[in-house]
Amino acid sequence: MKLEHIGIAVKSLETSDQLFSRLLGKDFYKQESVEREGVKTSFYKVGESKIELLEAQNNESAIAKYLDKNREGVHHLAFGVENILEEIKRLENAGFQFISKEPKVGADNKLVVFLHPKTTNGVLVEICQEKN
Amino acid sequence: MKLEHIGIAVKSLETSDQLFSRLLGKDFYKQESVEREGVKTSFYKVGESKIELLEAQNNESAIAKYLDKNREGVHHLAFGVENILEEIKRLENAGFQFISKEPKVGADNKLVVFLHPKTTNGVLVEICQEKN
Repeated sequence: MKLEHIGIAVKSLETSDQLFSRLLGKDFYKQESVEREGVKTSFYKVGESKIELLEAQNNESAIAKYLDKNREGVHHLAFGVENILEEIKRLENAGFQFISKEPKVGADNKLVVFLHPKTTNGVLVEICQEKN
Repeated sequence: MKLEHIGIAVKSLETSDQLFSRLLGKDFYKQESVEREGVKTSFYKVGESKIELLEAQNNESAIAKYLDKNREGVHHLAFGVENILEEIKRLENAGFQFISKEPKVGADNKLVVFLHPKTTNGVLVEICQEKN
């Protein structure tokens, strides 16, 4: 298990890309839109992890709903695993609840599931696996 | 620069240590109290990064004040650098503001400074360097 990325909800990628490129001393290495999720993302490499900035593309997006209630900031932590199905089983047996147990295709060629934050100390936790 | 750790504010280390050891599939590898900051911490290794759980030890602690206003969750992101003084200069030149520009001794044998979250998209950013 490694810390694959940190997802940060932002109002404007244009504004926040300027900020994070100054902070990290480098530009994003890719941008990607995930239509099904209604988000546009910018990715920055930091060691073996990534920073993923997330901007809503419509009002139904989870990021739009998040920013209705919260300030911009850390939205989720994503842990990368080799086998997401085994990890889902392990976490279920350990008593965790999932927002949905069915892995979906997310950004960055990943299969992803989210744990329910009420079972994870208020931290939205994503488990992800590279899609073969 | 690497993602050195993610600091998570919790009400009770005892409760949250149980949760995070189940989530990460391993126990914390150390606990440490930082008297000057009024916090007790548990550390978990995740790849090249760490999860640092932070519990307030008194009402004056930054973590106590944070939890007065916010739910438990991600408190700060810490980026590790080789030379903190050079990094402070670079970030100042890039227009960032610091909560205090003077590096202090933090947990885990580190020199640390914090950027002001109003200049960093609402994310509290720590810059840290291993103390020689």
